[in-house]
Amino acid sequence: MNVDAVIERMLPLLGERAAPERAARVFWSGVAEPGDALAGALLARVPAVPALRVAAHAAEIQRITGAQARAAADAAARWRPRLREDLLSDPLERAARSRVSILVPTDPEWPEAVDDLGDHAPIALWVRGDPDALRAPSVALVGARAATAYGEHVAGELAAGVVAAGVSVVSGAAYGIDGAAHRSALATRSGSTVAVLAGGCDRSYPAGHEQLLERIAATAAVVAEVPCGVAPTKWRFLARNRLIAALSLATIVVEAGARSGSLNTAGHAASLGRPLGAVPGPVTSPASVGCHRLLREYDAVCVTDAAEARELAGLGMARPLVVPGARTDERTRVRDALSTRVGRDAAELAARSGLATAEVEAILGAMLLEGSVVGVDGGWRRPAGR
Amino acid sequence: MNVDAVIERMLPLLGERAAPERAARVFWSGVAEPGDALAGALLARVPAVPALRVAAHAAEIQRITGAQARAAADAAARWRPRLREDLLSDPLERAARSRVSILVPTDPEWPEAVDDLGDHAPIALWVRGDPDALRAPSVALVGARAATAYGEHVAGELAAGVVAAGVSVVSGAAYGIDGAAHRSALATRSGSTVAVLAGGCDRSYPAGHEQLLERIAATAAVVAEVPCGVAPTKWRFLARNRLIAALSLATIVVEAGARSGSLNTAGHAASLGRPLGAVPGPVTSPASVGCHRLLREYDAVCVTDAAEARELAGLGMARPLVVPGARTDERTRVRDALSTRVGRDAAELAARSGLATAEVEAILGAMLLEGSVVGVDGGWRRPAGR
Repeated sequence: MNVDAVIERMLPLLGERAAPERAARVFWSGVAEPGDALAGALLARVPAVPALRVAAHAAEIQRITGAQARAAADAAARWRPRLREDLLSDPLERAARSRVSILVPTDPEWPEAVDDLGDHAPIALWVRGDPDALRAPSVALVGARAATAYGEHVAGELAAGVVAAGVSVVSGAAYGIDGAAHRSALATRSGSTVAVLAGGCDRSYPAGHEQLLERIAATAAVVAEVPCGVAPTKWRFLARNRLIAALSLATIVVEAGARSGSLNTAGHAASLGRPLGAVPGPVTSPASVGCHRLLREYDAVCVTDAAEARELAGLGMARPLVVPGARTDERTRVRDALSTRVGRDAAELAARSGLATAEVEAILGAMLLEGSVVGVDGGWRRPAGR
Repeated sequence: MNVDAVIERMLPLLGERAAPERAARVFWSGVAEPGDALAGALLARVPAVPALRVAAHAAEIQRITGAQARAAADAAARWRPRLREDLLSDPLERAARSRVSILVPTDPEWPEAVDDLGDHAPIALWVRGDPDALRAPSVALVGARAATAYGEHVAGELAAGVVAAGVSVVSGAAYGIDGAAHRSALATRSGSTVAVLAGGCDRSYPAGHEQLLERIAATAAVVAEVPCGVAPTKWRFLARNRLIAALSLATIVVEAGARSGSLNTAGHAASLGRPLGAVPGPVTSPASVGCHRLLREYDAVCVTDAAEARELAGLGMARPLVVPGARTDERTRVRDALSTRVGRDAAELAARSGLATAEVEAILGAMLLEGSVVGVDGGWRRPAGR
């Protein structure tokens, strides 16, 4: 393939920011699978155009990246079959048809949070909707497709409470928890929600969420790191999950079975050092097993409402725990020793409460002022009905 | 009160281990309220008989314990009203009638675990049933009286699984979670369960649990640190909770409202350095609010089944977490790239999977051996129905 000739031919498809380096980077987002660390390393060291020129040459890859010979040979062998002009022209034509914009790291709209992924960061982002939506503070709400009514209810409550505080909700547009979170965010006036897809952002996946994805694109953004038209695969779902985690201030798993893909998203959040939350549920519910294991073994934070979700993301404090009884005091002992029926004198109350008589008398004085004890023949008693 | 004369008269009521020191310590268990740290400090420094002689004398208390003058005066004032012969003779007569045995720290049956409470340790233990039951390895299962059917179900499951492993269940005999835990433990053959009461162990509290407490006493033990006949009070419930925590290897809160007394037990477990667990539940259930706050703010461990309860107590390991996808590999990519309908050659699969052609061929060979791919005209496809 003649790299320069191909890029020259692509420029008219790239819009007003068209430039050879941009075209080459966009090409790369289809040549390398999501998260290909050797592609990331190569692009960190040389611009995308010369990187394309060496993409099929193991020795050059090795020289530039310092990778081992075997790894460089593997990379050249896996990139070479994709150095085809149609693998760039087709997606660009689809993008133009679907009004998809393409971001590269030098663009002002680029969400810098994803750069925390290092060599695994996306090479480009294909965005249906408003690219600025990717930079809004956000919380990821993810979970099982096989969600329960409980899980969908909680996802909806959390999403509504998060967007009410002006924070965006990021999710994966799947059935179940993801869909409930997106829908609830959209239902709130000015609520913003971002869908991150495993396949091309112009393909509605799942098909049943076509309308939902259109509404998301109309109010915020549907984003993917693979080119338009690319099919979602299991591998790309797993790679996509790291993007969800990286785009968000915190990731919360609402429901997840023992082997849910949401646990993979959670793992990415944890390895990025992003706060990880999990919503508990009945221990008898298989749909909560994954969440409980995150609480046990991943040190996830227990999240039960939107205030706690916002706190997890560093956006405000939920209320503190007060342990009842920790401040139970002598007054409780005197109260226990009082009867509602018969009067008891201070000495009797002292014997019953295990306090000194003088102490009891002082407490009775205070209680008398607040009306929680009454004086009677024979001493003191509690007013009935309190 | 003439201490020596009273003690002399009490000795016949104390059974075969009767001795003045024993009688004096048993007396102290009624003179001081549970957890009275100054009584604990005094008894740590002088034997119980001389301690009784100075119990009404602030100056002596101060000299022996080094307490501040005010604290010593308060102690003398609160102990003095209880230095009455009937406050020892009545409980001893009740104990004899109800076949209650009394343990002091020098007895071989004394559960040393409670000594971790330091000056707050119980002075004596009044036991209905088998005193040896207190020394068995145990897990505390506690929770709200206002439990849900879910909570009682989980308490029962945990208790059954704990006793099946030869571990005893400690609880507080209250309605709700406590009762469910005791009953389930009793239902298991050879299951042992210990009830710790806030009032005298000869009093069945709550009254509706009289039969349950009798069955517990018949198979293991009902225990209290206050003398027989003493009424349970709110103060004593709170103090009792520290005994539940101290007697057990670990404490697990099954259900607790925002202000449940179980949170107090949990606090004691945490401050003793004993492992603390909490069972999650629906975030929509008020009966689980306390458990979720323990998970969030007390660093309690999420416990969802008996294996995890035993692990919390240091008795075996629950299974480890496997995050699905973490080990997803090149084979998954090749599988994704295969069709069940049409054959694709290795070069096509390489382009679709983002792998090198040689890599794809090696993987296809392995998949062929295990039958997860079939050769067809035009290349390879996945067998249908897999």
